[in-house]
Amino acid sequence: MTSSSPGNPPAKRATILDVAAAAGVSRQTVTRAMNDMPGISQATRERVQELARELGYSPSRFAKGLVQGARTSVGLAIPDLTNPYFPAFASSVVEMATQRGWNVVVDDFGHGTSSSLDAVARLSPQVDAVIGYLGSDSGKAQAMLGRRPVVVLDDPAGQTAGGISFDYSHAARLALNRLLAVGCGHIAYLDSGTDDALSVRGSAVAGVAAELGIELTVLHAAESAQAAGEAVADLVSRHAAMDGLVVFNDLMAAGALKGLAKSGRTVPDDCAVIGMDGIPLGELVTPELTTLSLNLREVGRTAVDLLEGLLSGAFAHGSPEAQLRLRHDLILRESA
Amino acid sequence: MTSSSPGNPPAKRATILDVAAAAGVSRQTVTRAMNDMPGISQATRERVQELARELGYSPSRFAKGLVQGARTSVGLAIPDLTNPYFPAFASSVVEMATQRGWNVVVDDFGHGTSSSLDAVARLSPQVDAVIGYLGSDSGKAQAMLGRRPVVVLDDPAGQTAGGISFDYSHAARLALNRLLAVGCGHIAYLDSGTDDALSVRGSAVAGVAAELGIELTVLHAAESAQAAGEAVADLVSRHAAMDGLVVFNDLMAAGALKGLAKSGRTVPDDCAVIGMDGIPLGELVTPELTTLSLNLREVGRTAVDLLEGLLSGAFAHGSPEAQLRLRHDLILRESA
Repeated sequence: MTSSSPGNPPAKRATILDVAAAAGVSRQTVTRAMNDMPGISQATRERVQELARELGYSPSRFAKGLVQGARTSVGLAIPDLTNPYFPAFASSVVEMATQRGWNVVVDDFGHGTSSSLDAVARLSPQVDAVIGYLGSDSGKAQAMLGRRPVVVLDDPAGQTAGGISFDYSHAARLALNRLLAVGCGHIAYLDSGTDDALSVRGSAVAGVAAELGIELTVLHAAESAQAAGEAVADLVSRHAAMDGLVVFNDLMAAGALKGLAKSGRTVPDDCAVIGMDGIPLGELVTPELTTLSLNLREVGRTAVDLLEGLLSGAFAHGSPEAQLRLRHDLILRESA
Repeated sequence: MTSSSPGNPPAKRATILDVAAAAGVSRQTVTRAMNDMPGISQATRERVQELARELGYSPSRFAKGLVQGARTSVGLAIPDLTNPYFPAFASSVVEMATQRGWNVVVDDFGHGTSSSLDAVARLSPQVDAVIGYLGSDSGKAQAMLGRRPVVVLDDPAGQTAGGISFDYSHAARLALNRLLAVGCGHIAYLDSGTDDALSVRGSAVAGVAAELGIELTVLHAAESAQAAGEAVADLVSRHAAMDGLVVFNDLMAAGALKGLAKSGRTVPDDCAVIGMDGIPLGELVTPELTTLSLNLREVGRTAVDLLEGLLSGAFAHGSPEAQLRLRHDLILRESA
């Protein structure tokens, strides 16, 4: 096991703090500059990168300096390898972690067990830290790991050492404005879940729709392409005017395209469709999927960099600078 | 770490050997019967399952009996999570292993490291056994793990404790006969790889084509949808008569569909296309992909059952009964 006290970075290597001091910026700005993350100017990015080169600082050397012989082992807890978002995310984390000489242990908790907490319990004896999609159990997972950091995605609650959340209102605004711009007058949102409760994404879409004066039709389906296709075909049979659709994720959007085709609707002429995630699948379906895209390499890199900062003590556990927020881009392809 | 000597199964639980003796069949037949694998008659299957129930034998209880408190930890080494075949396979192994109370550590060695042997070296300190796609390093991987069993897929060399290979000649025969049956006269095969050497799958297709008197055009592309699409578009521009195409895997076949569409060819009318793997992607592309399908749940279950037999000593390491061979089915959808 590898750990280090907060505020006690290893000697004789340039740290993120040295670079931040030299550049007169925050540690978070250094992280953003070193990792091509949004939120800072190009001039700042270049200045920080230049100083980092001069001082001999690089995130991977930094982490390796801490390990001192023991291999850092990171547990990666993901809900379901059969949803292509998660292997794409996992692949990115594995790539970035491997570059640092870390070992990654992947636990897919979607099969046979009840919760992300089971996954963390399985991982706990063998890892120095956990990155994962842990849902509402994030705080319990951090308690289970004690001083070992947990970096959680998609949970804005802030009960873990570090967190990465997504600005879904920004994403919803991009999608709904696009549908308005291409002339949609009857817009629906297909959410994940089989009851009527809105997901976090769904709440953001509904909120932005209200802001924009859109009367939004909301439908729900289980998180699979097939269920999504069936739900959309059913909606079309009841609500023929629907001409714009935002979908919870790309996998469900691929199913929605199938459902519309089987209902005799042409996309985007009869109904425009926008997915969410930006996974490679979107380029393989017909028509190619317009989507709210996360740069998955950026997400993986951000998670690994954040964890590195937490392991080294450069970021204090639970501090505001260990809570990052990423935004989606709207990738225009053929479906909207 | 959990291990057990060959020939020394745990006492007081019905084992696969007890069931085999009671039924008068081989251990391999019991495995086939218990797991709905092909290669035995329905009558044998039912008789073995009935005896297993009577004797109180089940594969999962069997494995749990061995573990005796220590959790069995299995390393899963896969080349690339971004090819959707591998997460689908990994998910199946995780599901089947989780049912037995095992822990699975996934190592994706496609990123930043040079070989499957690196993955096995990383896994070695933390696992009781390895399942993986290890390519030509299978024997070295087994040597590295010593008495801990390695179950390797897609390697017929037999240098590991256990192996699962695939009958690619059978698959090639199904695909080529289908293309002949729908009237194709100019058949091509798109192989993975950027030099002219045929893959194992490619050799099987070429061999069966020769048997059937088909003059096969072979082309190569890197193992991605985009590269496959470009290679197919290029072939069509040079070889306008091509009206049937078999593709190395489903991901590349999805790219081939795109390449044909961009070249103005209608599938299957102008050119029929058959993929290989049977991953869920094939149902999401347009037209839906006809493919040589492995039942991935069966592959995962077979790998986990085989490993269970090797860990328990029911199967001797490297014995013929620890070398299994699975067959593809031809799933007819829209593309051929």
